[in-house]
Amino acid sequence: MERTLSAEVAGHVDARITVAGWLHTVRALGGLTFALVRDRAGLVQVVTEDDADANLLRDLGAEAVVTVTGRVAREPRAPQGVEIRAEHIEAISAPVGPLPLQINKRELSAGLEAMLDHRALSLRAPAARAVFRVQAEVAASFAEFLAGQGFVGVHTPKLVSAGAESGADLFAVDYFGRPAFLAQSPQCYKQMLVGVFERVFEIAPAYRAEKHDTARHTNEFTSLDFELGFIDSHEDVMAMENAWLVHLAARLRERCAGEFALLEAEIPEVPVRIPRLRLSEVQEAIGLNQGEPDLDPEAERAASAWAKERFGSDFLFVTHYGVEKRPFYAMPDPEDPRLTLSFDLLFRGWEITTGGQRLHRYQDYVEKLTARGLDPAAFDFYLEAFRCALPPHGGLGAGLERITARLLNLRNLREATLFPRDRGRLTP
Amino acid sequence: MERTLSAEVAGHVDARITVAGWLHTVRALGGLTFALVRDRAGLVQVVTEDDADANLLRDLGAEAVVTVTGRVAREPRAPQGVEIRAEHIEAISAPVGPLPLQINKRELSAGLEAMLDHRALSLRAPAARAVFRVQAEVAASFAEFLAGQGFVGVHTPKLVSAGAESGADLFAVDYFGRPAFLAQSPQCYKQMLVGVFERVFEIAPAYRAEKHDTARHTNEFTSLDFELGFIDSHEDVMAMENAWLVHLAARLRERCAGEFALLEAEIPEVPVRIPRLRLSEVQEAIGLNQGEPDLDPEAERAASAWAKERFGSDFLFVTHYGVEKRPFYAMPDPEDPRLTLSFDLLFRGWEITTGGQRLHRYQDYVEKLTARGLDPAAFDFYLEAFRCALPPHGGLGAGLERITARLLNLRNLREATLFPRDRGRLTP
Repeated sequence: MERTLSAEVAGHVDARITVAGWLHTVRALGGLTFALVRDRAGLVQVVTEDDADANLLRDLGAEAVVTVTGRVAREPRAPQGVEIRAEHIEAISAPVGPLPLQINKRELSAGLEAMLDHRALSLRAPAARAVFRVQAEVAASFAEFLAGQGFVGVHTPKLVSAGAESGADLFAVDYFGRPAFLAQSPQCYKQMLVGVFERVFEIAPAYRAEKHDTARHTNEFTSLDFELGFIDSHEDVMAMENAWLVHLAARLRERCAGEFALLEAEIPEVPVRIPRLRLSEVQEAIGLNQGEPDLDPEAERAASAWAKERFGSDFLFVTHYGVEKRPFYAMPDPEDPRLTLSFDLLFRGWEITTGGQRLHRYQDYVEKLTARGLDPAAFDFYLEAFRCALPPHGGLGAGLERITARLLNLRNLREATLFPRDRGRLTP
Repeated sequence: MERTLSAEVAGHVDARITVAGWLHTVRALGGLTFALVRDRAGLVQVVTEDDADANLLRDLGAEAVVTVTGRVAREPRAPQGVEIRAEHIEAISAPVGPLPLQINKRELSAGLEAMLDHRALSLRAPAARAVFRVQAEVAASFAEFLAGQGFVGVHTPKLVSAGAESGADLFAVDYFGRPAFLAQSPQCYKQMLVGVFERVFEIAPAYRAEKHDTARHTNEFTSLDFELGFIDSHEDVMAMENAWLVHLAARLRERCAGEFALLEAEIPEVPVRIPRLRLSEVQEAIGLNQGEPDLDPEAERAASAWAKERFGSDFLFVTHYGVEKRPFYAMPDPEDPRLTLSFDLLFRGWEITTGGQRLHRYQDYVEKLTARGLDPAAFDFYLEAFRCALPPHGGLGAGLERITARLLNLRNLREATLFPRDRGRLTP
């Protein structure tokens, strides 16, 4: 089938072409029947005055798959200023039974739960589709930017024998009769691989068996991770992420202007140097107790709003979190061992990244694990990397869905997740 | 730290520079001590006649992390024709205890099991490292080529309620007290997403709880998947993979010549049209019974060798496998319903891809699932995509580790897996 995509139709005025796609809308107006055909590139208007074709369109209804052959004519009121005067319409595949919800209105009436229940259909809505086109660009930009910086893309196991983040939040797997777990992060492996490649990144699923059910948590998410060796401090890790975000914003401006316009969202300006403040400074600025080792979600929103006001920045690096709120592998601040050389990145009110410098000496790990009541023997496969010597290193993990949600001002992380998994949801 | 990478040292003859990396080898020769320093870019020779520095190098030993500052001099016998005459050597991080194996010999004495047991060290060997640099290029090329063809990169759940491939081979997960499984493939989701984007790809882990323990099976692997709509037949799917492989070979020639040379492997010539033969034709050519619905591993080797001999091709598409050996979603051949519009791609003796055209009508799924004793209700989340109408479509799944292993003539899939998971191995 010689097929023209909807976005290319305007280049074929007066020519006879064939388009293929889904019937997005069908409506009769006077003696004419209009349909919008949706394909991967957008929407194109089709018009017919033939009774048989009009009946076919009406009987098929929304979401039927069709091919339409006809001549292209200018029509200022149609998308892209053109329409196809149909000569031949063919049904390829028809819906079975009534559609579970409508996706062809500008404002969708279905609530979030219905959208998530009927993902095979709700994702077809142009607005939903736009979210995941932006998400694909975020992931592709992460990989391409880091590859250009000498990072190697890796694939580490998600079936693991021990969790690096916290013991309580692990999903258990029956591994040939032995217990195994789903990895909460690639932390152990990416550090081990600093010894191999110095610089590694991974884009892969990560799991947290947390029971809380909030608008910014799901139990399976896509983690963007990198780790790099031979750093001076966590500042080098922040600088790398900052440079990536500058690259990302440029790419989104180049490739996703249409998606941002459709979703009425703004591509952020990324400062060449995102403001970097210590946790205690941020706490002071927003009037909080400086003794707390962490920010809660409300404080993150306040800090983000303050940074926007103070620096005009949608982004804020908050550094030097308290040691008790950071994982065992966090590097203590040499100037104050109650603090760590760590950071979170806040973006439009949400934490989207956690990172920092890591410990790199074997003995430090043995001490930290023991002090936290963890058994170093369970981590021996990991500790071997330190026994074989690693340089100072650090890295970060960022949630792909969280970044997408904040880029597009989506209220719930689930809107930025194709098929979310939470306590109540294992399908679709 | 102003640092020069090993691969750049030759551009700094007579200059004073600093390199950083791991001591790959240390040896004394007459009054001089030589070390090879390994960093992410390669190896560089360092030489000293200072007793204190010589003692430091000897005491640190292999795998210590050091920085070396000195003047660059030409030295034809050293890598890249240069060496660094050390002025200052600093120990950054020293190994603890003896190394579990040696990685600094041209021929490694450790067997595969020891290499897998001590992955944090064995991966540092230049030959091992080269394998995964090639692998990273394979994955990156898959993503970039397909994005250029209008495919959207997606992230689908690995925690699922039902398996698409075969019921017996699922890993069970305790999902908040409910049973869940690890996805064997993104099959259901990528088909659902044909309705959204027409063309999708995914690079993600996949799981098979198969108990067999062979050189070409592991229980967790990285699956390269794509699916595309509006096809005429499985031929369109093969054509897309063929075009990708042509792109991949060009990229490997451009970026990985050094890795292939080190591993004494040849980048394959990919025919513009890889030979495509029906299973029955292949069986006839290699003297097998044409009644069998599938090829066993031995027959795959024979078929591959025959294609190399007959067509000069390292690749062979074998099509039209028997319906009983293909999954429920396979499209039967309209000319012979005992066969399917499916294919495998053989590459240097191994099957590296399985794909084909899929059923796209709701009623066909209900019938096929029922006929195979599967409950359509368990797949309702998936069947909704067909009730909402999908066009003819097809796709494939390819094993990243298998492709890597065959590109580099590795005998065991585990050599092409950073941290393999099999029945006996859950660490490192």
